[in-house]
Amino acid sequence: MNIQPYRPEPDELSYTFGGRAPVGEVRPGTILELYTEDCFGGRVRTVDDLPSQVCEFPYLNPVTGPFHVVGAEPGDTIALHFVSITPARDWAMSTTFPHFGALTATHTTAMLHQALEERVWRYDLDLERGVAVYRARKSDFTVELPLDPMHGTVGVAPAAGEVRMTITPDAHGGNMDTPELRAGVTVYLGVNVEGGLFAIGDGHGRQGHGEVCGTALEAAMNTVVAVDLIKGVGTPWPRMEDDLHLMSTGSARPLEDAYRISQHDLVTWSAGLTGLETLDAYQLISQAGQAPVGNVCDTNYTMVAKVAKAHLRDPAAYGSAHARLRALGAEYLSSR
Amino acid sequence: MNIQPYRPEPDELSYTFGGRAPVGEVRPGTILELYTEDCFGGRVRTVDDLPSQVCEFPYLNPVTGPFHVVGAEPGDTIALHFVSITPARDWAMSTTFPHFGALTATHTTAMLHQALEERVWRYDLDLERGVAVYRARKSDFTVELPLDPMHGTVGVAPAAGEVRMTITPDAHGGNMDTPELRAGVTVYLGVNVEGGLFAIGDGHGRQGHGEVCGTALEAAMNTVVAVDLIKGVGTPWPRMEDDLHLMSTGSARPLEDAYRISQHDLVTWSAGLTGLETLDAYQLISQAGQAPVGNVCDTNYTMVAKVAKAHLRDPAAYGSAHARLRALGAEYLSSR
Amino acid sequence: MNIQPYRPEPDELSYTFGGRAPVGEVRPGTILELYTEDCFGGRVRTVDDLPSQVCEFPYLNPVTGPFHVVGAEPGDTIALHFVSITPARDWAMSTTFPHFGALTATHTTAMLHQALEERVWRYDLDLERGVAVYRARKSDFTVELPLDPMHGTVGVAPAAGEVRMTITPDAHGGNMDTPELRAGVTVYLGVNVEGGLFAIGDGHGRQGHGEVCGTALEAAMNTVVAVDLIKGVGTPWPRMEDDLHLMSTGSARPLEDAYRISQHDLVTWSAGLTGLETLDAYQLISQAGQAPVGNVCDTNYTMVAKVAKAHLRDPAAYGSAHARLRALGAEYLSSR
Amino acid sequence: MNIQPYRPEPDELSYTFGGRAPVGEVRPGTILELYTEDCFGGRVRTVDDLPSQVCEFPYLNPVTGPFHVVGAEPGDTIALHFVSITPARDWAMSTTFPHFGALTATHTTAMLHQALEERVWRYDLDLERGVAVYRARKSDFTVELPLDPMHGTVGVAPAAGEVRMTITPDAHGGNMDTPELRAGVTVYLGVNVEGGLFAIGDGHGRQGHGEVCGTALEAAMNTVVAVDLIKGVGTPWPRMEDDLHLMSTGSARPLEDAYRISQHDLVTWSAGLTGLETLDAYQLISQAGQAPVGNVCDTNYTMVAKVAKAHLRDPAAYGSAHARLRALGAEYLSSR
Repeated sequence: MNIQPYRPEPDELSYTFGGRAPVGEVRPGTILELYTEDCFGGRVRTVDDLPSQVCEFPYLNPVTGPFHVVGAEPGDTIALHFVSITPARDWAMSTTFPHFGALTATHTTAMLHQALEERVWRYDLDLERGVAVYRARKSDFTVELPLDPMHGTVGVAPAAGEVRMTITPDAHGGNMDTPELRAGVTVYLGVNVEGGLFAIGDGHGRQGHGEVCGTALEAAMNTVVAVDLIKGVGTPWPRMEDDLHLMSTGSARPLEDAYRISQHDLVTWSAGLTGLETLDAYQLISQAGQAPVGNVCDTNYTMVAKVAKAHLRDPAAYGSAHARLRALGAEYLSSR
Repeated sequence: MNIQPYRPEPDELSYTFGGRAPVGEVRPGTILELYTEDCFGGRVRTVDDLPSQVCEFPYLNPVTGPFHVVGAEPGDTIALHFVSITPARDWAMSTTFPHFGALTATHTTAMLHQALEERVWRYDLDLERGVAVYRARKSDFTVELPLDPMHGTVGVAPAAGEVRMTITPDAHGGNMDTPELRAGVTVYLGVNVEGGLFAIGDGHGRQGHGEVCGTALEAAMNTVVAVDLIKGVGTPWPRMEDDLHLMSTGSARPLEDAYRISQHDLVTWSAGLTGLETLDAYQLISQAGQAPVGNVCDTNYTMVAKVAKAHLRDPAAYGSAHARLRALGAEYLSSR
Repeated sequence: MNIQPYRPEPDELSYTFGGRAPVGEVRPGTILELYTEDCFGGRVRTVDDLPSQVCEFPYLNPVTGPFHVVGAEPGDTIALHFVSITPARDWAMSTTFPHFGALTATHTTAMLHQALEERVWRYDLDLERGVAVYRARKSDFTVELPLDPMHGTVGVAPAAGEVRMTITPDAHGGNMDTPELRAGVTVYLGVNVEGGLFAIGDGHGRQGHGEVCGTALEAAMNTVVAVDLIKGVGTPWPRMEDDLHLMSTGSARPLEDAYRISQHDLVTWSAGLTGLETLDAYQLISQAGQAPVGNVCDTNYTMVAKVAKAHLRDPAAYGSAHARLRALGAEYLSSR
Repeated sequence: MNIQPYRPEPDELSYTFGGRAPVGEVRPGTILELYTEDCFGGRVRTVDDLPSQVCEFPYLNPVTGPFHVVGAEPGDTIALHFVSITPARDWAMSTTFPHFGALTATHTTAMLHQALEERVWRYDLDLERGVAVYRARKSDFTVELPLDPMHGTVGVAPAAGEVRMTITPDAHGGNMDTPELRAGVTVYLGVNVEGGLFAIGDGHGRQGHGEVCGTALEAAMNTVVAVDLIKGVGTPWPRMEDDLHLMSTGSARPLEDAYRISQHDLVTWSAGLTGLETLDAYQLISQAGQAPVGNVCDTNYTMVAKVAKAHLRDPAAYGSAHARLRALGAEYLSSR
């Protein structure tokens, strides 16, 4: 098994997709052991660390990478199987952030209100018991929430020579902030430039649907990824697969367009996998499909369209890449 | 136990919320045994019955009711607990419908495209085994989907003297088309006029998230509802409760506004129930909250905001109306 | 000339389109002399009269009417030519209003901000000189703005038995709040119920594009309207015509859908009037069309699509109803 | 007078804002004589040249530049005064384009419709008489439209290290496609990187509001620009000024957010220029402001907020840069 560890130095972190030389090269079939920093660059550590004071725009939401996948060319697809996602510290931070979030005026939903109060919450993480402890700031209310670690950000270099801040999700991936991107999931990303140049970041101990206040349980992560390359098969928007489901994503505004992109892709992808005529696939997804909300706070909103593979009679997507990578991940885990 | 059966004659069906005299009077504590017709008025029965030919606008989406709740006044809340929702026939119908649905030009998302093909699918329902059979129209693909019966439409007479087509969801309820409205759930509706005047319809054998093609497994239903009245407590947008969750809804366009309304209501409702300060509740819902999509096809879109009661340390909403109605429903069921 | 004056008593004002018996009957060819109250019902008269204190929901935005047009049936079009619109007082009022306007959180763009300050501005109107005087409340800045009187609200009873608050614009007309609806303009409204039941209100001394703060120079008006009926010709969304232009409207959310509806209607209407094939009309409107913003604050937003008749080679719309009514109006004016 | 001509070779054209070395250096006070190619790169010349066949993604919408403004640093503002904009050929082209435009399904407003027909129109331009001739493709309808030359695209390198396709409008400018950007107008652009790196392209012989079909009268241009630098004054979104008006822009989706950004900026800018308290400025802009639609077809939509300087009592913006540049332009023109 080809195992490649990588822990970025602070000055190796990336803040864009595109526009950066790769930090390393990866052959298909490799297991990557990665460290990812949290979205604040690790600078928010106590409830007194206000992001607007300790962080510096635009150095937010750092990602680990980009990695050059050997042999990847435009028109191919990179498959990233998340073998494990483990919080690297026993705490996580969350905050309101001025003019950021779904229930506040923002720079684009521009209003004459003052910003909401900037406030920080610190969660203790108990990995053994799989819980995070919420503590109110203005009362003594506390409650345990189950951990459900995930990555908010994964993507490749965009098409057309673009360079995008990591905080923006779009067709190249980016900051989709969907809780569906947890361990056990394979992410498929269409390649736009030689090597693909994927990167990963923004770990969350858990996240509600939509990330309504703008941040989740922001956490540094030790994450293991199995990397593969599917030659000659394109992927228009990031897709995901777990043992039981196929998923398409869409990132846009307004939110119904994110929904439309994701459902449209799931309908046409399902039609291709099953031989269903398009309207027949539209009908089936209409009744069998789910629509987990990703984010409703970032510069584009993200929706996921999801269907049980059983409801499509278990088609094999991408030449069964998920099954292959899952087996590789299991082998890795059992070897630890 | 006060049990009241009601099966509307065809000319007793309603096509609006508001603007109709009640079909009956109900005292709080009553069990209603209702029959509801499907959204096509039962006129689409084979794959050759095109809705545009056999249905007549605006006589679509009929509801059973309205019922006058004795003692209900503006500022109160009607609680409707869905004891059971049972398909009344062994089939259900679904269709594409010209200029209706999320992946088609519509009368408001106006475009120069011709309408998509109007096509009908017929599902056989097997209540014993709890499945519906999907059959493609253009190939021999079939698959079984689990039944998950629900009502798309429930609401009261709107405020301000308005009368709205049943197809529109808004603050008075209406055609929210959320799969969360299944048996075991209590719906809370704010009263706008004396008696409240609630009505129910649009049964679905099951529905995907967003009802992307515009229709679900449209089915007539035999539905049992336990009715209660909460005096002196208002409800700004329809809310729901099951044994484990609290839910708020929002219906608006664009979809992010439906999301905002529902999350805003869940945040402020949770704050009221737990004593959490508002931003503390915002933070907790941001991490613990879910956002099941209702519809992305109707004249307003609907989102649900949902949180496990355990994550709020099990507050009692509406004076524990849900627990009380659930017990009443259980008593009814065990008496059958 | 058949001239019919009407000044409503306070209890004759209407607050909905639909749901009201007509206040009078009008034959096609009649000149109506109407008085309309301002959107506050005349209750806001000084800068100390806060709407939230002196007005009572839902008794806002009263309209004068509805009028039954003799002979009007569903499928016909009512033509209303605005002969003159004259402020009835020498002052007008404007306000911010809690949770209403484009640059504030609202009940549907729900946010956790407190409402913006409720503040009232009083404008002196000088009809002779055609100006209104703006006076800042927090400084001694004053400036004169040209008067450009218009009606924010005009409509008929909606289809499908609906009753809508006057504040909502939709396919039946309503509170479109477009400055294009000034004297010299003919408005075309599709008839949904016998008699059509049109009503008019919400005079503005002038209004910016979008009515961004939610109110304009709210003014009672003496308004003269020439009424006509076009049999057997339907109108899907309100249209307007002046001596030089044709205009279509659309009211919806998000704002691009209001734009789409209005442009789509102008494209297809123009194609019908000129014999242009649809894409040829699309191209011509794309280059020659204007898009004056109506409102971006009401429960639906309104856009107008406008084209110079010269750019369509001067087609005759609705059998030259505008020219006929304009001549009737001129005759009326010269007879005063 | 410092006059600098520049005509790019084909391989010098840029397709992004950011990510390119400057093609030249410009000192404040310089007059630039530029040639800009049309959005098709000049490849669509007859009605048989379908863009999808003769153009190659992403080499669309080329811009002339970028130019390094000597002394420009982040936090400064570049002022570009358009002295003249003259079509370089006696024809212009317009097309429908698959999945592009306001009345068609697109890649983000994803639908199951087939693309509309791709069709090309050729306009003859008569610069003497100031007209363009529209010719229908499917009938013999022709009509003259007045020329009103403008640039769809002007911008600087974006912030945060981003590189954006020229087709996208955002805070850095880009493809705003507003007819307000005509000769006589000064555009203000906030500087994000050293030298600012502005570029200009996408000339239109004229354009309707919203560019509803996705293209205008696409034309190569000979354009004269007077360049200035305002040190130490930032500009959050592109602004414009002509002899009579101030204008703010906003580019976002949904369209109401573009409206909000532009109106918010005009309100706060006006407050700063006049000393008006914020809500007083909100009120004044609400009554005096205009909202010309830019584009409703690009990857972000653009709105302009516009107010007559007289209605603000003629404040001097940016130290009267517009007046200074206008005088410089007049001097240049009289010297020809």
